[in-house]
Amino acid sequence: MCQLMGMNANAPTDVMFSFAGLASRADEHKDGFGIAFFEGKGLRLFVDPASARDSLLAEAVQRYPIHSEVVIAHIRKATQGRVALENTHPFSRELWGRYWVAAHNGNLVDFQPRLHGAFRPVGDTDSERAFCWLMQELAKAHHTVPSVSELTLTLKELLPAIHRHGSFNLLLSNGEALWAHASTKLQLLQRAYPFQPTRLRDADLSLDFRPDARPGDRVALVATEPLTADEPWQPLASGELVVLQGGERIA
Amino acid sequence: MCQLMGMNANAPTDVMFSFAGLASRADEHKDGFGIAFFEGKGLRLFVDPASARDSLLAEAVQRYPIHSEVVIAHIRKATQGRVALENTHPFSRELWGRYWVAAHNGNLVDFQPRLHGAFRPVGDTDSERAFCWLMQELAKAHHTVPSVSELTLTLKELLPAIHRHGSFNLLLSNGEALWAHASTKLQLLQRAYPFQPTRLRDADLSLDFRPDARPGDRVALVATEPLTADEPWQPLASGELVVLQGGERIA
Repeated sequence: MCQLMGMNANAPTDVMFSFAGLASRADEHKDGFGIAFFEGKGLRLFVDPASARDSLLAEAVQRYPIHSEVVIAHIRKATQGRVALENTHPFSRELWGRYWVAAHNGNLVDFQPRLHGAFRPVGDTDSERAFCWLMQELAKAHHTVPSVSELTLTLKELLPAIHRHGSFNLLLSNGEALWAHASTKLQLLQRAYPFQPTRLRDADLSLDFRPDARPGDRVALVATEPLTADEPWQPLASGELVVLQGGERIA
Repeated sequence: MCQLMGMNANAPTDVMFSFAGLASRADEHKDGFGIAFFEGKGLRLFVDPASARDSLLAEAVQRYPIHSEVVIAHIRKATQGRVALENTHPFSRELWGRYWVAAHNGNLVDFQPRLHGAFRPVGDTDSERAFCWLMQELAKAHHTVPSVSELTLTLKELLPAIHRHGSFNLLLSNGEALWAHASTKLQLLQRAYPFQPTRLRDADLSLDFRPDARPGDRVALVATEPLTADEPWQPLASGELVVLQGGERIA
């Protein structure tokens, strides 16, 4: 099974600690990795079909202190689609003058929607097909840029149509908000000032956020499995859609 | 003025030597850099609003031996649009299940086309606006994936409509071919087996391609100015459209 990680913060935040935790699981997930960083409306997207453990790019990303408000990372274990650059998550498209990014953990069976709009898969994964269909249906549902709450309502209508085809843990963002749809496994963690020191579950690494923290700072994380050993990760229910904005879960 | 570099080869080729030549000019072009690598249908796109001379990412890219059939690189000196990640070339969009990438050198005046299709700028440069309009018009002109020669015919109709608004040196690729449209300055170089040793014009660096070369290998390069001191770069005429495929200029 692939590993997902998403981060949303109310101030540009470095995710290298969490990414190190994710990459330490790469021995079981050797079919590529990717990480997308939003900086305002701008996007940096790094993808590599090599294992996150061996990848020179993963090493460079871990040493490169990118500060971002929204991050989506994925470590791949191929289920559908061969190991290739074009099949490596996250995927990205532009809609309404915003970049959209998605990464998927799970497996969809017999999901062959009619793609008649402006979004076509480049690779051959079920995940990119589902993302293109979502983009197509969002574009049909709204003529101009909708608000985060309008987008959430539309996503609540669309996501079950994909979910009924199999397991569909999804992270989706346009840089404004991060939507996390849980299917089989997805966990949520909210951190806020003054923060506490913490340590990774799968790697011998600890971090104390307190020296750099400022009053009001908030960070929310979602991941397929808890990344840290000593924080209150909350499992999400199957079919649950969580919206993260400004570093916290919103209604 | 910005600097452009494009490469097309008939076998996956490393462009680190040429990119070093381009990056050495970054002191005059400090407003960002970007480089796109196609590997088959897959795409790696690195963008950074920092100077290519200072950027940690540019350093990582130069040490990272990516082998690619098509590369588009850009070093930015901002004319329109502030220095920001979303204004950093190259830009990318998906059309007909292929990624498309473009980078522009020049300045367009009063180019405000009607963007009524599926392609909208994320940033606020004339360059991304021109790219979105090209994608929109290509999508209208062809319902299914056209051949490279059909695309070239359509581009020959579309490009003059942009060019009349100012200087418009453009590199465009879908990974299958590389189109180079010359306006004020663009130079072409074709290399073929058995190759010759060469040295950069602006940096104290020489390279001998011969040890790794194989019979039949071909590489074509385009750049705003010759990158090497001792090779027969050919200036392109204003309005000329060059199509590179399989490592050479095609009719």
